Amino acid sequence: MEAFTAVGHRIPKLDAVEKATGRARYIQDIKLPGMLYGKILYSKYPHARIVHIDTAKARRLPGVKAVLTGDRIPKIRFGFYKDNVPLKTGKVRSRRDEVVAVAATDPDIAQEALDLIEVHYEALPAVFDPEEAMQEDAPLVHEEHKTNVLKLPWKLHYGDVEEARKRARHVVKERFRVTWVTHCCLGTSGVIAEFDQSNNLTVYRNTQIPSLAQKDFMDALRAMGLGDRRVRIIKPYIGGAFGSKLDTYAFEYIAILLAYETRRPVCILFDRKEEFFATSTRQPAIIDIAQGCDAEGRLLFRDVSMILDNGAYTSWGATTPSVMMMPISSLYRVPNVRYHARCVYTNNTWSQAMRGYGNPQATFAIESSMDMLAEEAGIDPVEFRLINVNQPGEVTPQGFRITTCGLRECIEEVKRRLDWDGPKGLGEGVGIASLIHVGGGARVYKSDGCGTLLKMDDYGRVEVFTGATDMGQGADTVIAQVVAEELGLRVEDVRVIHQDTDVCPWDVGAHASRTTFVACNSALGAARRIKERLLDLASRELAESPEALILRDREVRSRRDPEKRMEIGKLLRKAHFRLKGQMLMADYFYDPANENLDREFKGNLSMTYTFGAHGVRVKVDEETGKVRILKYVAAHDVGRAINPMLLEGQVYGGALMGVGYTLTEQLIVDKGEVMNPNFRDYKVPTAKDAVAVETAIIETVDRDGPYGAKGIGEPGCVPTAPAIANAVYDATGVRIRELPLTLERVLMAIREKGAPNPVTPQPEGR
Amino acid sequence: MEAFTAVGHRIPKLDAVEKATGRARYIQDIKLPGMLYGKILYSKYPHARIVHIDTAKARRLPGVKAVLTGDRIPKIRFGFYKDNVPLKTGKVRSRRDEVVAVAATDPDIAQEALDLIEVHYEALPAVFDPEEAMQEDAPLVHEEHKTNVLKLPWKLHYGDVEEARKRARHVVKERFRVTWVTHCCLGTSGVIAEFDQSNNLTVYRNTQIPSLAQKDFMDALRAMGLGDRRVRIIKPYIGGAFGSKLDTYAFEYIAILLAYETRRPVCILFDRKEEFFATSTRQPAIIDIAQGCDAEGRLLFRDVSMILDNGAYTSWGATTPSVMMMPISSLYRVPNVRYHARCVYTNNTWSQAMRGYGNPQATFAIESSMDMLAEEAGIDPVEFRLINVNQPGEVTPQGFRITTCGLRECIEEVKRRLDWDGPKGLGEGVGIASLIHVGGGARVYKSDGCGTLLKMDDYGRVEVFTGATDMGQGADTVIAQVVAEELGLRVEDVRVIHQDTDVCPWDVGAHASRTTFVACNSALGAARRIKERLLDLASRELAESPEALILRDREVRSRRDPEKRMEIGKLLRKAHFRLKGQMLMADYFYDPANENLDREFKGNLSMTYTFGAHGVRVKVDEETGKVRILKYVAAHDVGRAINPMLLEGQVYGGALMGVGYTLTEQLIVDKGEVMNPNFRDYKVPTAKDAVAVETAIIETVDRDGPYGAKGIGEPGCVPTAPAIANAVYDATGVRIRELPLTLERVLMAIREKGAPNPVTPQPEGR
Repeated sequence: MEAFTAVGHRIPKLDAVEKATGRARYIQDIKLPGMLYGKILYSKYPHARIVHIDTAKARRLPGVKAVLTGDRIPKIRFGFYKDNVPLKTGKVRSRRDEVVAVAATDPDIAQEALDLIEVHYEALPAVFDPEEAMQEDAPLVHEEHKTNVLKLPWKLHYGDVEEARKRARHVVKERFRVTWVTHCCLGTSGVIAEFDQSNNLTVYRNTQIPSLAQKDFMDALRAMGLGDRRVRIIKPYIGGAFGSKLDTYAFEYIAILLAYETRRPVCILFDRKEEFFATSTRQPAIIDIAQGCDAEGRLLFRDVSMILDNGAYTSWGATTPSVMMMPISSLYRVPNVRYHARCVYTNNTWSQAMRGYGNPQATFAIESSMDMLAEEAGIDPVEFRLINVNQPGEVTPQGFRITTCGLRECIEEVKRRLDWDGPKGLGEGVGIASLIHVGGGARVYKSDGCGTLLKMDDYGRVEVFTGATDMGQGADTVIAQVVAEELGLRVEDVRVIHQDTDVCPWDVGAHASRTTFVACNSALGAARRIKERLLDLASRELAESPEALILRDREVRSRRDPEKRMEIGKLLRKAHFRLKGQMLMADYFYDPANENLDREFKGNLSMTYTFGAHGVRVKVDEETGKVRILKYVAAHDVGRAINPMLLEGQVYGGALMGVGYTLTEQLIVDKGEVMNPNFRDYKVPTAKDAVAVETAIIETVDRDGPYGAKGIGEPGCVPTAPAIANAVYDATGVRIRELPLTLERVLMAIREKGAPNPVTPQPEGR
Repeated sequence: MEAFTAVGHRIPKLDAVEKATGRARYIQDIKLPGMLYGKILYSKYPHARIVHIDTAKARRLPGVKAVLTGDRIPKIRFGFYKDNVPLKTGKVRSRRDEVVAVAATDPDIAQEALDLIEVHYEALPAVFDPEEAMQEDAPLVHEEHKTNVLKLPWKLHYGDVEEARKRARHVVKERFRVTWVTHCCLGTSGVIAEFDQSNNLTVYRNTQIPSLAQKDFMDALRAMGLGDRRVRIIKPYIGGAFGSKLDTYAFEYIAILLAYETRRPVCILFDRKEEFFATSTRQPAIIDIAQGCDAEGRLLFRDVSMILDNGAYTSWGATTPSVMMMPISSLYRVPNVRYHARCVYTNNTWSQAMRGYGNPQATFAIESSMDMLAEEAGIDPVEFRLINVNQPGEVTPQGFRITTCGLRECIEEVKRRLDWDGPKGLGEGVGIASLIHVGGGARVYKSDGCGTLLKMDDYGRVEVFTGATDMGQGADTVIAQVVAEELGLRVEDVRVIHQDTDVCPWDVGAHASRTTFVACNSALGAARRIKERLLDLASRELAESPEALILRDREVRSRRDPEKRMEIGKLLRKAHFRLKGQMLMADYFYDPANENLDREFKGNLSMTYTFGAHGVRVKVDEETGKVRILKYVAAHDVGRAINPMLLEGQVYGGALMGVGYTLTEQLIVDKGEVMNPNFRDYKVPTAKDAVAVETAIIETVDRDGPYGAKGIGEPGCVPTAPAIANAVYDATGVRIRELPLTLERVLMAIREKGAPNPVTPQPEGR
């Protein structure tokens, strides 16, 4: 095979210039004629009865076009459990509960209207700790459920954990805690809703799920009594999402209701404070994990139970345990596995998808515990991992069929690059952690599909309409690369169109690191149909069999006879400009042959799995507790690097997000209130905190991936926390079991060294 | 066959509500961030040397961002003959010649800048009469050609005209004249050009030819030294076109050049005055026609020669003779035909496509001459036409293969409805004229194709991406109807998308009454691919053979067993939401099997031909010369009326345009200057002038048409002028040989009755 001309090349993002020059249009840039601005009044209490709402003054304010309260809107229910409504009636259950919404001609007027609204509350006893919420006498967040513990079925069992525990030579059992962090998208959330005269709805929204949002809003219109209407989602450029835009939220339904009420387009844009307290976080959890191995270090069992703080409403965040099962059941070969998770209502904020979707939380516990078990067994942590490493061809306890697996290569590469056995300076330590993640789609919805339409013009250029959503990760660019490669074109010959459900085929959304795998396979399917027709046309023009022809450098060429060649554009024009002419178009719908998990949460969720290992060398300042990362190595089995530059970008970004999760980030929630809703007090790593991440790309060339590629969107942030925690232990001998590893927490642990290291109380700030 | 549920129904235009409520966005409604406004300074002289242009003051005006003159721009040539450039250098050749262009932050500033520009001209002798322009000593419009007569090949010869003339029992020979009229679109011309950072170009333009404009602008970018760039045409709603937007014009290239110069979007919008004097008209002509018949009234020959006033530049208007050949060769069976046309440069305005594209001019001469020949032969005009009527299966002298032909039925229907032989009041007369036009596309470009992409959602709804251009005629609606009919859906289930070359497949443009025929056949091709898959899916779900299944009322049903039925949306969801799910998409490119005319202008230009006859009853006031239309019958062979309401709208609109052409409209051009560039002085019929047109729809169900339909966009305006002129003759005995039949012209002719009726001098106004 000849070298690739597009795949494997370091091609800058197609939209880089538009973004860098400020021409890319984000939701904040869109102004529709006659557009109104909506604002939301949130609850003053974490838990209270709404006694009375007085909106009279707000209604009289000039420029105010609508004021909505929960009792004046139709019954629209949303969220995973359908336990949430756009505007609350009866009582509020969290500080982010939406109580009143206004639409005005100007955002300042809308804000002033909010200030004129008086809501009388009767405060209710609240509960903020999930373990307290599980008590029988705890205040009930949703009375109708009669308990705060959700009836969700998160249980997995494979083999016989009790029997294995008895057989185990070494066992460790620990409790870990992880807390709220949030996505910190530079592009805040926003929506514009607009009805036409037939009550068809157009929604502009920086969403990761255009097709699913379309369905949600169709349901909402039905609930509004409008019957079956058309809904069109137009997706402007997205300034980051990371899972935060993977669902539909109250503010979107509010915009729709205000637009319907006013018959004008209504825009709601979150300010930075709202983005912090009114969008959903990564799910906090209390994780109990026990693992055991035999004398040779072979894992015998893994037993995990979790309590998750569900907050006041049940979003898709409550389904993160279904993904946590993945590393719990399948990271390393472990023959007996048990997992049980309980989601508990509290009066806190509620969580949602965030990059890794539970995997970073679970992996923090697993990989911390792995190091502890290795120590218990007297085996080097790297060696211990290699003993248990996943292997191609294995079927894991959850029923995942591993095709390609480069985990061994990843671990060995990290070991080598980190100089694992080499000398360490004062206060230095090394740590490693691995990951497994879905890399070939994930059938979490009824469909894991993505559609493509493709058309060629008379000059050898292509438009690709994809269902896929580029939210900044570069999906458009890799789609253009595989199409260009397949059709012998240059990347700039391919335009990827992905912003409009009217135009683009269906796709389940940008989640589960599926876009490169699924959308590129879909685009390839369409491109191959075009290729076949191109070769057929060329075969007649050049008197050469299609098998002997290749597409390359905008030409079709014979492999055998260098004289037989023709510019692709010319070939297309010959096909078009003749009697009964033809132009080339194609469609393809790719739905991977992966499986929904069954009632026991087993099944081959993904077509392939991605593996990786991160290693860090840290230096811990024992005077301040400060953890400094001296070296960071990220090794990933990516199948094939379609665009090494963008892939490295994903890994850098993931690792840095992981570093924030590990060391500095936390949403400080006090009695249900977010105390640090701004970038001054919420410590996301900045440019000066950036760590130089050394990437090692392992190409296992997966049989099902597009040109062999696997998904790599989420993995970069998965193993960071345990790798750093393990390195801190190596450096200091203290084992931190709770995130983040703030200065205070590390310092206190060092001071208490020698004593048992319980979960420390959570400090406020650093 | 069961009755149709969508086809044949009187369904309002899909965009009617958006237009009626002011929500439809026209070019005038589009504002891009940072957009500048361009204005053009036109020539002060019809023919002059440009001595010096002083733009210094204009450049200094605050808000002016660019001032362009011809010597500062690259060599871009456009028009059919490539004899035109965006900004003129050296000399100007007409009053509409573009000399300087400015771009400013505000249209008023742009206008003020124009006022500050000083252009020094040296006037040159000019020529305004094409016959004078043919003289050897006439001033040359383009010196390099050494003559004003264009070397265009408009000659057709079939049979032996000279021999036939000798055999003829009756011969008439006359000269007719037609003058300038213009389209009077309510939506004036406009364009916005915008470059991205990679010099790809987006053009917003109310154009009838998105795909051809794209090519023209790609050529322009190449001329600008930008190499092969992407060009995207976005077509907003069009407020009427009628051929006026069937080419690219100087102002579009100027907008592109200004946008490139300023790196900002530049918008040029024509005001009403510009729309009158700076857009192109219907081509004026001097037509000499001789016809002869035998004793039984059978046509023996037709001999036509024409002089066309080409104006200063050669646009596609110079190609109207290629369409004039159609009625000349093929309206009625005429065994010997000769045609010769000369296009002559003058310093007048230049012409372009206008509804009928030469056919109304030629038919005015042919059908006036037919009545004169009938009188000469002593045969009733209706009877004379029926003797010579076209018939299905005939091949005409130009090589047109007539498939279906309802001309006899049309003529008989007109005769009946007009009570042809019945009594007439004082000053009343009846007249009739027929038409032939292309009805199944017209291969005037290398391709006559139109592409469609089609996708279905999970609810049985369809998006159709068509290359076709809806410019107000209702193309979207008929496309939705045929797709709905084919797939058993309702029209509101189909959304037609047609505004963007990035999204929509190629189409040659909205001309030659081709859209219903070609675009519906294309849409049907795609819909049938979907239908096949739907029936295949249903066949498995319902255990019924596909042949026994029909799609109707959003269901798939068995013809045999009423129990076997399933909602189409449900069927689609079953196909989608399963392992390796599928969603239905399809593409189709339809290019009719019609032929380009050969070097002798012969060939089967269209898949089918449309016929019609218009009859009028008039009352002429002999005191004032006023022609009042008492009754107007329009009978058309339309193949199939897909939407009788829209079809009638086309016929009404056409007939009224014809009435204006016949009685009141003319662009008064005096020494090259348009003297009536406004709706006060240019007498387009208003609502109070509207004639009640009685339509008779003859359905011949063409084998190649979509559901049997033929095109009907242009024919409505073709036979109006001769029908009225013939009726005036019947009423008064005066034969008017020149359009329009103004009061003065009719009155003068009546006064001179008895004397030979030469072409009267052209009055100024009415």
